[in-house]
Amino acid sequence: MNRNDVTEKIIATKVSKGLKWESVAKKVGLSKEWVTAGCLGQMTFDEKQAKVVGKIFGLSAEEIKWLQVVPYKGSLPTAVPTDPLIYRWYELVNVYGTTIKELIHEEFGDGIMSAIDFSMDIVRQPDPKGDRVNVVLSGKFLPYKQY
Amino acid sequence: MNRNDVTEKIIATKVSKGLKWESVAKKVGLSKEWVTAGCLGQMTFDEKQAKVVGKIFGLSAEEIKWLQVVPYKGSLPTAVPTDPLIYRWYELVNVYGTTIKELIHEEFGDGIMSAIDFSMDIVRQPDPKGDRVNVVLSGKFLPYKQY
Amino acid sequence: MNRNDVTEKIIATKVSKGLKWESVAKKVGLSKEWVTAGCLGQMTFDEKQAKVVGKIFGLSAEEIKWLQVVPYKGSLPTAVPTDPLIYRWYELVNVYGTTIKELIHEEFGDGIMSAIDFSMDIVRQPDPKGDRVNVVLSGKFLPYKQY
Amino acid sequence: MNRNDVTEKIIATKVSKGLKWESVAKKVGLSKEWVTAGCLGQMTFDEKQAKVVGKIFGLSAEEIKWLQVVPYKGSLPTAVPTDPLIYRWYELVNVYGTTIKELIHEEFGDGIMSAIDFSMDIVRQPDPKGDRVNVVLSGKFLPYKQY
Amino acid sequence: MNRNDVTEKIIATKVSKGLKWESVAKKVGLSKEWVTAGCLGQMTFDEKQAKVVGKIFGLSAEEIKWLQVVPYKGSLPTAVPTDPLIYRWYELVNVYGTTIKELIHEEFGDGIMSAIDFSMDIVRQPDPKGDRVNVVLSGKFLPYKQY
Amino acid sequence: MNRNDVTEKIIATKVSKGLKWESVAKKVGLSKEWVTAGCLGQMTFDEKQAKVVGKIFGLSAEEIKWLQVVPYKGSLPTAVPTDPLIYRWYELVNVYGTTIKELIHEEFGDGIMSAIDFSMDIVRQPDPKGDRVNVVLSGKFLPYKQY
Amino acid sequence: MNRNDVTEKIIATKVSKGLKWESVAKKVGLSKEWVTAGCLGQMTFDEKQAKVVGKIFGLSAEEIKWLQVVPYKGSLPTAVPTDPLIYRWYELVNVYGTTIKELIHEEFGDGIMSAIDFSMDIVRQPDPKGDRVNVVLSGKFLPYKQY
Amino acid sequence: MNRNDVTEKIIATKVSKGLKWESVAKKVGLSKEWVTAGCLGQMTFDEKQAKVVGKIFGLSAEEIKWLQVVPYKGSLPTAVPTDPLIYRWYELVNVYGTTIKELIHEEFGDGIMSAIDFSMDIVRQPDPKGDRVNVVLSGKFLPYKQY
Amino acid sequence: MNRNDVTEKIIATKVSKGLKWESVAKKVGLSKEWVTAGCLGQMTFDEKQAKVVGKIFGLSAEEIKWLQVVPYKGSLPTAVPTDPLIYRWYELVNVYGTTIKELIHEEFGDGIMSAIDFSMDIVRQPDPKGDRVNVVLSGKFLPYKQY
Amino acid sequence: MNRNDVTEKIIATKVSKGLKWESVAKKVGLSKEWVTAGCLGQMTFDEKQAKVVGKIFGLSAEEIKWLQVVPYKGSLPTAVPTDPLIYRWYELVNVYGTTIKELIHEEFGDGIMSAIDFSMDIVRQPDPKGDRVNVVLSGKFLPYKQY
Repeated sequence: MNRNDVTEKIIATKVSKGLKWESVAKKVGLSKEWVTAGCLGQMTFDEKQAKVVGKIFGLSAEEIKWLQVVPYKGSLPTAVPTDPLIYRWYELVNVYGTTIKELIHEEFGDGIMSAIDFSMDIVRQPDPKGDRVNVVLSGKFLPYKQY
Repeated sequence: MNRNDVTEKIIATKVSKGLKWESVAKKVGLSKEWVTAGCLGQMTFDEKQAKVVGKIFGLSAEEIKWLQVVPYKGSLPTAVPTDPLIYRWYELVNVYGTTIKELIHEEFGDGIMSAIDFSMDIVRQPDPKGDRVNVVLSGKFLPYKQY
Repeated sequence: MNRNDVTEKIIATKVSKGLKWESVAKKVGLSKEWVTAGCLGQMTFDEKQAKVVGKIFGLSAEEIKWLQVVPYKGSLPTAVPTDPLIYRWYELVNVYGTTIKELIHEEFGDGIMSAIDFSMDIVRQPDPKGDRVNVVLSGKFLPYKQY
Repeated sequence: MNRNDVTEKIIATKVSKGLKWESVAKKVGLSKEWVTAGCLGQMTFDEKQAKVVGKIFGLSAEEIKWLQVVPYKGSLPTAVPTDPLIYRWYELVNVYGTTIKELIHEEFGDGIMSAIDFSMDIVRQPDPKGDRVNVVLSGKFLPYKQY
Repeated sequence: MNRNDVTEKIIATKVSKGLKWESVAKKVGLSKEWVTAGCLGQMTFDEKQAKVVGKIFGLSAEEIKWLQVVPYKGSLPTAVPTDPLIYRWYELVNVYGTTIKELIHEEFGDGIMSAIDFSMDIVRQPDPKGDRVNVVLSGKFLPYKQY
Repeated sequence: MNRNDVTEKIIATKVSKGLKWESVAKKVGLSKEWVTAGCLGQMTFDEKQAKVVGKIFGLSAEEIKWLQVVPYKGSLPTAVPTDPLIYRWYELVNVYGTTIKELIHEEFGDGIMSAIDFSMDIVRQPDPKGDRVNVVLSGKFLPYKQY
Repeated sequence: MNRNDVTEKIIATKVSKGLKWESVAKKVGLSKEWVTAGCLGQMTFDEKQAKVVGKIFGLSAEEIKWLQVVPYKGSLPTAVPTDPLIYRWYELVNVYGTTIKELIHEEFGDGIMSAIDFSMDIVRQPDPKGDRVNVVLSGKFLPYKQY
Repeated sequence: MNRNDVTEKIIATKVSKGLKWESVAKKVGLSKEWVTAGCLGQMTFDEKQAKVVGKIFGLSAEEIKWLQVVPYKGSLPTAVPTDPLIYRWYELVNVYGTTIKELIHEEFGDGIMSAIDFSMDIVRQPDPKGDRVNVVLSGKFLPYKQY
Repeated sequence: MNRNDVTEKIIATKVSKGLKWESVAKKVGLSKEWVTAGCLGQMTFDEKQAKVVGKIFGLSAEEIKWLQVVPYKGSLPTAVPTDPLIYRWYELVNVYGTTIKELIHEEFGDGIMSAIDFSMDIVRQPDPKGDRVNVVLSGKFLPYKQY
Repeated sequence: MNRNDVTEKIIATKVSKGLKWESVAKKVGLSKEWVTAGCLGQMTFDEKQAKVVGKIFGLSAEEIKWLQVVPYKGSLPTAVPTDPLIYRWYELVNVYGTTIKELIHEEFGDGIMSAIDFSMDIVRQPDPKGDRVNVVLSGKFLPYKQY
């Protein structure tokens, strides 16, 4: 057994039981973004969280232990994603990559926007011309250290 | 001459003159994100905008014409970016890709978040534990058409 | 169980029962192109459609649920397809890619032809010199947004 | 000098003179799709056509000769295109590839849709919900030969 | 079950029974090249041929049906083949590719040598300095269509 | 200066002077296949041959020397060729690769068909249904040595 | 002009003048590791540092400006480095990658070792069996944020 | 059975029993870095060590034999690692690769830092601004031999 | 069953029985290099040799037949090997590749060193400064044929 | 100027002057293998050697300095070489890679054959059935260190 097996079981149970990520997140007590990422094998639950998740998805004691092990991260099967929804994000990085770099450096100097001390919030923004997906990404700026 | 030559000239002039993208954007009258992307060869200026940009960077008439031609987009030299700042964004897509997919589909059903009818806003969020980079991405949801 | 298992079962059943995609599509009540793509794991059926498909291919209740889950899209095993029929389409994109780009931009300006608000129609066109495959692709033009 | 140099000169001249592919095609007397592909270095002009093109773009006698040499085809710099407009076509092949294969084989049996005995027609289809790009692809069906 | 399973069964049976492709081909009544390609999952048998193949290799009724389904073609596990015999062919394409292109265009103009309306004949040519493999490839020339 | 420069000069001169590979080969006194491959930078001329080639294409003494240096072989810019004519050959290797392997081994045992002690002959075969390209490949069989 | 041109000039000047990175670093007043990385186009100098570097390598005012612009980072021409010295480091990551991951997580929990708030020190450690290269890497541990 | 099966069993047992690499290493009597690498299938245990490891993880006699067979090394599933912790190390090689090369050559001349006669020590360095991961890498310098 | 299954069984049996390749080779009556390559699925045994190998490793009649079938060669899982021992050989080809090419051509003219009519001998050479691995590679020179 | 420029000048001079690597090596006083590798930009000359090489090839003082700088090694333009002579060596690593690994480990235990403390000797071995290329590779065995 490995973490991937647990992830596949969670996904299959979600389909057969018709669960929602949002309600899973509420029971865990954290954002839907972080909890979904955890259920999909990208984040590490603490013992209490893992037990909540385990109960929702009917996991065994051993499977619950796996939720507490830091996983080998990376959720995509190919370097350039084929799924159209995920590809659009890859495209944003490709088209806007140098723009993002220029503007963050203009504001903050040399360094990066952390993907670890990071949060993400995905919401629906109603719009008469068609609702929009609004995503707020927040990452701590980390300046390059001189030494 | 091609669009890439114009982009390189803009960047070199920005360095030698010590310009700021934000002030360029103000003169063009649009957001700093879109205008920077345009100056970096990813967006198409209309005639009036192109002339403003041309004046700022000392471009020739022919170079100003190139700003109005739709460019071959894609700003990165490799499929997986090596630059640490840009790589963090690639990593977000890699680690959170399936999470983003799940949550948008849970809220909207099958479809994508547009990268064309799209805007981005990058701002500094002061934080006593270290300032943060906050980025708001807004894309129209486009449902898959059944036919 | 995952969507891929369902796709494989559908294909195997189609072979053993000698079914036609066209007749499957008629029962579902949509085009043969969209329904085939759905059966091959690229589109999402609603509950009613999924039940029709499930009945045709003898799927279980759980398999029918999987048909209603948005799949991870992408139907090809390699970035450059090896199958000669599919490769010809890749070749068209490769040889005519810049031509298509130039002509759409000349007519519509900067933007894209949507692959989401999209339909496709494949028909036989009789021809004394050898029948032809005629394919009509129709995608909404989406202009790049300025902001 | 090589064909690529001629292509670059044609594109640069088109920008500086503000020409349209459609009017170039009219002067050549063939479709805008084939003529644009030829000007972009993907098709071979005969002597008469080459002279027309040469006159429009101010080409030298040697450059006009290059237009009559069969080029090394392939117009994209990477196997998976980064430009959003062209990528959508790649995505169509990726998402619909197996569907196209199934439906052509269902109708015609084993074989391919030719990309050589082939034509393409790109037109604007007015639509109150947003105009559409309609593309008709027509390729001769070539059955696999048994021997 | 899929076509690949059938191919593997055919190969395993060939080994355990010590069959020859040449004798298989004779029973099918076509060339050894086409029949072997079919048995290896690259060509489509008609019903009568499939039954002959099925009898030789002890296939089930369902397996015989799979032989009549157009396969997803491509017989190699990597884009550049590692097997020395097959690599030599890849090397020929690599070293002589532009030569073949030049000479076919010199003789026929722009177009291709079909890999569909195609036949291949592999024979031993006795030679005192060491026997030779002689391969005759015959493909219909398909001129690029102007339109 | 390097061999590639010489190859480019030969090709450019061929276009501007309107030469034919076949007539070049006749003057050199070898087959059109080998001589074209040599002119395209894949084979090594001896001194006498190099002088003939040099005279035809107006090469300098130094360029003629380069024709006698063994080149770094490989004539294609990408591992999978994009040019449709050359791709068809790659496709043959891909689709028929395992077939060729099986049949050569069935006839000769373990070993390869040499791509060094090798010749190729490309001829037009008239055919009322459309002329064909016939290619005869002849390579010495080299058995694997046991030791 | 771009940062790469400045890097090449610095390297060429270092060779022709026979300079040492260690003495360059002393004049800049920072470690040899950080200063060398900066001179090789991977770090950003402030104005004062840039002037010192400029004086050492005889850079122009514009070149000195480029040293103060955040560069597009990544110093290797291929994803897997070919140079034996650098490859050994890639090999360490490849062979010990999962070990490093396990041990950092065992000590610190989920998170990463920063490559931004980071320093490196390379020293010679005399050893009678052959001197050793000792490298101390020090990176701040950044825990994954829950939200 | 192969070494990979043994590695997977060790990892699964570690999770279910809640073991620590550090305590495993103590029982083996070597560093935590080398022992972990060995347990993860990258190093070769001698008989005595293998028995200790086998006892801790409940391995069979055959599994203990596999621990003594030199493994095919390389612990990562992709050439560029996706896991953020491991990627940071890849990034260090990418950003600092040429710097490391320059400084080792400046100190030692042409040669490499061995990844075989090598040791690594990972420790926590307490720091009020956030604890740090300190890693000491020690590799014998191997000069290139002239001959 | 396929050849790969037989290879894996041979390797597993070798581990569990503690066999040596050298003694296997002696029983077969050929060199340890060729016999090991055969056992690892890269060479083809004749009937008598296969029976000897089958007896040593306890193979079934069908498995012994597979040893006599020409395998699909190539023993490495990735194009650039990750295993340090094998990588050093790849590195030799990479660093010395052009040198080997130059020196063989200087001595022999255009052609190759055969990898088919080839033998290899690996021996230990005692050396007070550390024993050495000496490998003698012997390949027939094959001159390029002119035609 | 960089090392690559010096390498290209050396090669071009060798062609125009008709020099032999063997005679260059004699003047340098080292083996033809090491000296050729050095001239091709893979090894580092000391001052005295560099002056000898510089005199032979008419290099400037600055070019002679570059010969003494440790180069970025790797002589091949692609990860899998296209040149037939060099490919045969890649093929040897691919086909015999696991065999070499098994036999060195059987003789020496875990470790590698050094590619740094290494020498190579290429000689012609006369043979009535066709002369052979004999290559002796000698690398120090480096055992993996336990710690």
